[in-house]
Amino acid sequence: MSHNTFGHLFRVTTWGESHGPAIGCVIDGCPPGLPLTAAHIQFWLNRRAPGGSRFVTQRREPDEVKILSGVFEDDRTDGPLTTGTPISLLIENVDQRSKDYGDIRDLYRPGHADYAYDAKYGLRDYRGGGRSSARETAMRVAAGAVARRVLGDGVQIRAALVQIGDRAVDRTRWDWAECENNPFWCPDAETAKAWEAMLDQARHDGNSLGAIIEVEATGVPAGWGAPLYGKLDAEIAGALMSINAVKGVEIGAGFASATLTGVENADEMRAGENGQPAFLSNSAGGVLGGISTGQPVVARLAVKPTSSILTARRTVDRFGANADVSTKGRHDPCVGIRGAPVAEAMLACVLADAKLRHRGQTGR
Amino acid sequence: MSHNTFGHLFRVTTWGESHGPAIGCVIDGCPPGLPLTAAHIQFWLNRRAPGGSRFVTQRREPDEVKILSGVFEDDRTDGPLTTGTPISLLIENVDQRSKDYGDIRDLYRPGHADYAYDAKYGLRDYRGGGRSSARETAMRVAAGAVARRVLGDGVQIRAALVQIGDRAVDRTRWDWAECENNPFWCPDAETAKAWEAMLDQARHDGNSLGAIIEVEATGVPAGWGAPLYGKLDAEIAGALMSINAVKGVEIGAGFASATLTGVENADEMRAGENGQPAFLSNSAGGVLGGISTGQPVVARLAVKPTSSILTARRTVDRFGANADVSTKGRHDPCVGIRGAPVAEAMLACVLADAKLRHRGQTGR
Amino acid sequence: MSHNTFGHLFRVTTWGESHGPAIGCVIDGCPPGLPLTAAHIQFWLNRRAPGGSRFVTQRREPDEVKILSGVFEDDRTDGPLTTGTPISLLIENVDQRSKDYGDIRDLYRPGHADYAYDAKYGLRDYRGGGRSSARETAMRVAAGAVARRVLGDGVQIRAALVQIGDRAVDRTRWDWAECENNPFWCPDAETAKAWEAMLDQARHDGNSLGAIIEVEATGVPAGWGAPLYGKLDAEIAGALMSINAVKGVEIGAGFASATLTGVENADEMRAGENGQPAFLSNSAGGVLGGISTGQPVVARLAVKPTSSILTARRTVDRFGANADVSTKGRHDPCVGIRGAPVAEAMLACVLADAKLRHRGQTGR
Amino acid sequence: MSHNTFGHLFRVTTWGESHGPAIGCVIDGCPPGLPLTAAHIQFWLNRRAPGGSRFVTQRREPDEVKILSGVFEDDRTDGPLTTGTPISLLIENVDQRSKDYGDIRDLYRPGHADYAYDAKYGLRDYRGGGRSSARETAMRVAAGAVARRVLGDGVQIRAALVQIGDRAVDRTRWDWAECENNPFWCPDAETAKAWEAMLDQARHDGNSLGAIIEVEATGVPAGWGAPLYGKLDAEIAGALMSINAVKGVEIGAGFASATLTGVENADEMRAGENGQPAFLSNSAGGVLGGISTGQPVVARLAVKPTSSILTARRTVDRFGANADVSTKGRHDPCVGIRGAPVAEAMLACVLADAKLRHRGQTGR
Repeated sequence: MSHNTFGHLFRVTTWGESHGPAIGCVIDGCPPGLPLTAAHIQFWLNRRAPGGSRFVTQRREPDEVKILSGVFEDDRTDGPLTTGTPISLLIENVDQRSKDYGDIRDLYRPGHADYAYDAKYGLRDYRGGGRSSARETAMRVAAGAVARRVLGDGVQIRAALVQIGDRAVDRTRWDWAECENNPFWCPDAETAKAWEAMLDQARHDGNSLGAIIEVEATGVPAGWGAPLYGKLDAEIAGALMSINAVKGVEIGAGFASATLTGVENADEMRAGENGQPAFLSNSAGGVLGGISTGQPVVARLAVKPTSSILTARRTVDRFGANADVSTKGRHDPCVGIRGAPVAEAMLACVLADAKLRHRGQTGR
Repeated sequence: MSHNTFGHLFRVTTWGESHGPAIGCVIDGCPPGLPLTAAHIQFWLNRRAPGGSRFVTQRREPDEVKILSGVFEDDRTDGPLTTGTPISLLIENVDQRSKDYGDIRDLYRPGHADYAYDAKYGLRDYRGGGRSSARETAMRVAAGAVARRVLGDGVQIRAALVQIGDRAVDRTRWDWAECENNPFWCPDAETAKAWEAMLDQARHDGNSLGAIIEVEATGVPAGWGAPLYGKLDAEIAGALMSINAVKGVEIGAGFASATLTGVENADEMRAGENGQPAFLSNSAGGVLGGISTGQPVVARLAVKPTSSILTARRTVDRFGANADVSTKGRHDPCVGIRGAPVAEAMLACVLADAKLRHRGQTGR
Repeated sequence: MSHNTFGHLFRVTTWGESHGPAIGCVIDGCPPGLPLTAAHIQFWLNRRAPGGSRFVTQRREPDEVKILSGVFEDDRTDGPLTTGTPISLLIENVDQRSKDYGDIRDLYRPGHADYAYDAKYGLRDYRGGGRSSARETAMRVAAGAVARRVLGDGVQIRAALVQIGDRAVDRTRWDWAECENNPFWCPDAETAKAWEAMLDQARHDGNSLGAIIEVEATGVPAGWGAPLYGKLDAEIAGALMSINAVKGVEIGAGFASATLTGVENADEMRAGENGQPAFLSNSAGGVLGGISTGQPVVARLAVKPTSSILTARRTVDRFGANADVSTKGRHDPCVGIRGAPVAEAMLACVLADAKLRHRGQTGR
Repeated sequence: MSHNTFGHLFRVTTWGESHGPAIGCVIDGCPPGLPLTAAHIQFWLNRRAPGGSRFVTQRREPDEVKILSGVFEDDRTDGPLTTGTPISLLIENVDQRSKDYGDIRDLYRPGHADYAYDAKYGLRDYRGGGRSSARETAMRVAAGAVARRVLGDGVQIRAALVQIGDRAVDRTRWDWAECENNPFWCPDAETAKAWEAMLDQARHDGNSLGAIIEVEATGVPAGWGAPLYGKLDAEIAGALMSINAVKGVEIGAGFASATLTGVENADEMRAGENGQPAFLSNSAGGVLGGISTGQPVVARLAVKPTSSILTARRTVDRFGANADVSTKGRHDPCVGIRGAPVAEAMLACVLADAKLRHRGQTGR
């Protein structure tokens, strides 16, 4: 019910506005006894804003996370362990500039949530987007870092950008290691070069580009997820669609499955190791009937182009008068880039929750 | 938390297996005082299985819904009204044939949930797919009929098939009225003819086809939905992805937004009537920041081809031995067709819930 | 959120009015593989309305429960097993007499929910109390029967009446076996005789009596329940208070703990078997910090006297006019008697849910 | 589901340990547009620890609350208003003394949650009780202050101690104003004097006393709360029972209703003002069928004596060996005193949530 909470047994509640004193989250239901330090979380947070790239806007602040509760370092243990009580995480907004927001205070920026917030609440914190700022995704990433601890090393989650604008990666050149070599999480070195040029051009034009992210989890055992309305793919879809700027989510073959025949789409099976089936393909994206099958869980999400652009667009103000608006300052030319670690985090949270729920119901 | 419940204030819990005595649902949180009869619900149920079409498998049963609780006809009123207490709906499975399921009892059909259910629960009701049967969607449609009452006549929800296999409708010929003239919910008469031939061929080949459904809601006021994890589009995505065979969901421009620039994607605004903005385009699909904007809410969902096909496919049995399996009997050559009324129903339920939650928090 | 649902992982949703076609419930989240038949549930239902007693009103109907989903009898198993999918239970209201309710249609009976329902919903099903009828507790008992399966034989739950009117049992004569020998669930034969006389007198006077029920669970392992707002005792309190006519709930020493000193109230411990502490007393009622300690979980609930009495009471009608009302027909002179099996059932449901949640979070 | 969250539409999630860096809470679902400052919350927090009384342990810290999100002061408004987004509150634990907890690190204090936490989680933060510390109740009070804003001035909530040890107040001398004149929230000046002597004696003896608190809400309109498992009294019972050291909760006549007859217990009605019934008594405590009736909502809660006492008690350590334990330092001789503002806060939160839910379902 809680609009700012996701998950069921592994529950994450986030709070905070872009230009308030801080942002944070509370993680409830985390299993006890897991090693957890701020450094572990910070590692994942730092990936969300890779330094040195001109394609990701830098706030002049370290985004340093603090753990305020839920871990305890007994003198009998090697380091802090989760206690099973709520884990409170906080990042101070040290970069709250005294910027004058007067120019957008009364304007509804196209593509942004400005008008929708006003329509719903009757008022809004217009500074930096307030609650609708992408800054909030930092806490998703922080929660995802804890979720990875719950999942353990057996489950690996990683994301790559597979398309920016109309240029998709060449999957024959896919190399996960390459994602660490460019600022785009691009698994294809050649495409990464093309994207660089495209994004420089977009910025030069006061414009921006959309993207498609692919995220996968390997090592997920068969049996997680639960029919019918807590289906694993339904929860993944909801979690990924809740990320800022995401407009589409697909699992496995996704929208392409509309053009497959039943003969093509069937993931055939042969006798595998340990008595488990070996699937010969993965159109299902690792989920059948809402339950994991042991295959990699594969999802893709479409991210719209950054709405904050220098090019002026027509709009209205809150008094109903026509106006033009353009967004000053530096903004990511493609918010999808920053979305990759966020997609990983959301998938991690959904899976951690599914693990605990499955264990609760079945004891396995 | 409840895996077989969806919604928050307007909550629907469904139950039942394909070949058990009955299927049903309980709708909790429905506002009191709404006129509701079994006939109203039956009207929408009948649309799910249009008679006379050779493209939708007919069960030899009427799918007659009964209302067991939650409505009351006082002698002071013109007909039964909802009382605000749980509405229990039930459809008997009069068509439980004594069919021998021995041939699939131990086999895992590719594309079906057979293996996943066994992996999760250690056992499964293999008769007709048990709980994972598409028959369950009847109760979604029934709940959607009640949700329409909650929404009132001001909100109109309708769905169309926009693609079967690789053949999409021509949007310049879009005519909603046409959807009632063919068995495909196709808004384009010419494409409907093509689909007919394609589906006859698919069935002749022992094969099946996928589809894409578009569903829209008009008349939704600005302000419904709630950031951040109860975003209207996130809840729509989860609800639609929970429908059998759905592999992808998108809102507004959806995956196409990846190829739009920020300039193109911005839905510009001009001063509109009643002081509300008039949007000049609807890439957002009626949702910004997770909140409705007053524009039509537009979503699309990709439905994979029917997994039950006559063509034999390789698989394993529950003992780990290799086997071949084909599905006997008549099955829909394209399950997407039946999906259109289900998509409408799920959207109706999400919106009814959003309406009540918005009213709860804001009093509007 | 759902007002007609209780529990989290083990979730029960009930529906139905006293004089509608049926009442029922849906149990979601039940572990798979548990043996379950209608006969098992019926056994507990029959205890709720012990035949032959003149102190419990008999409906002229068998209250025969049917299982409509969620169990499956494979030909490989000895009997039906739960499948992990929703268990739907239904009892038909075969005793829906065509009684004329015109005399109370517009009157608000003191002590009943009549006025409150009208104030909330604007209308109500006035036949037999509608949704507020004690008949609904049958489904609590049915759900409790399933919960007992989840708990297994290691956890024993039983209730006794410890007070009717101003006459409490003599605890030095406490004998659980005695509860089966009288129609009051009274563990003290002598007190049972006194109650018999008191209740005959009350009925003769057109009056009714209140009662106190004690319910305990033995065999609950240490560790169930969870701070802070899902405390085991908090959930027990909520569950027991939700039973019709209950006005107070206490755990362990309960209200008497207000008169104990800290020295007296401390449940001291000594080294016990298997390394677990042996508690020397149980003022805590088996719960400390909201978590079970391994001691018996003990709760008591106060049940107000039956509100349906022959003696006329002053009231108003729905138009605001003064009136007198008395309840015709036979009614339980002490609704607390029927409450004992209901209290057991609610405790069973809370514990089953706590077991699954504890297992989910901790894996134990 | 979330164990550290309470409420449904008005949801409060708390976090923090007694001796961690801070404690805090997140309030989600608060209506927008309500005036809210830290000073408003601080006012209620200060009542929880009235200065100058020797009967309430003082931490050497101000318990200064900060609002980190969810309010916004536009230059068009007179002060900060809630925005409808999550309100994050934080109190730093400036008094985290480097005290040596080695003496209780391995001991299970009787009456405390020490053993239960270890049994559940396998580890615990033993400093000052960790998560089970009464310090956590500060955040309940803070949340209650926000809940009061939601309820508005029409609803008044106040609590009084009605019994300490075996000495109850004389209700003929009840004067709410008197509660502000003594450190016991005692409405009866004479009894307050007796309590002072009793508590001095208890402390002198290294002992402690229990108490009973009465809390009431006036101005609650008829219609809040919802059957059957979200009954207003059931939710009040759960909320009050979740407060540290509470062992019993009753509504209206409560346990005394067991000794009333049906004739006595019936709250008769006469035609009242505005067409609403005027009740002639309030045995129901303002709730019938789980729904408010418009009468004052009245509850009482029993608080056990402080478990931290100087008198040595027998126990075991975590290795299973026998030991004695006494609690050093100053502790409240009666934790019930501090419980009064906490009880008010919990009742406020339950009512605020009930208000929003009622509005959501019925539009009223």
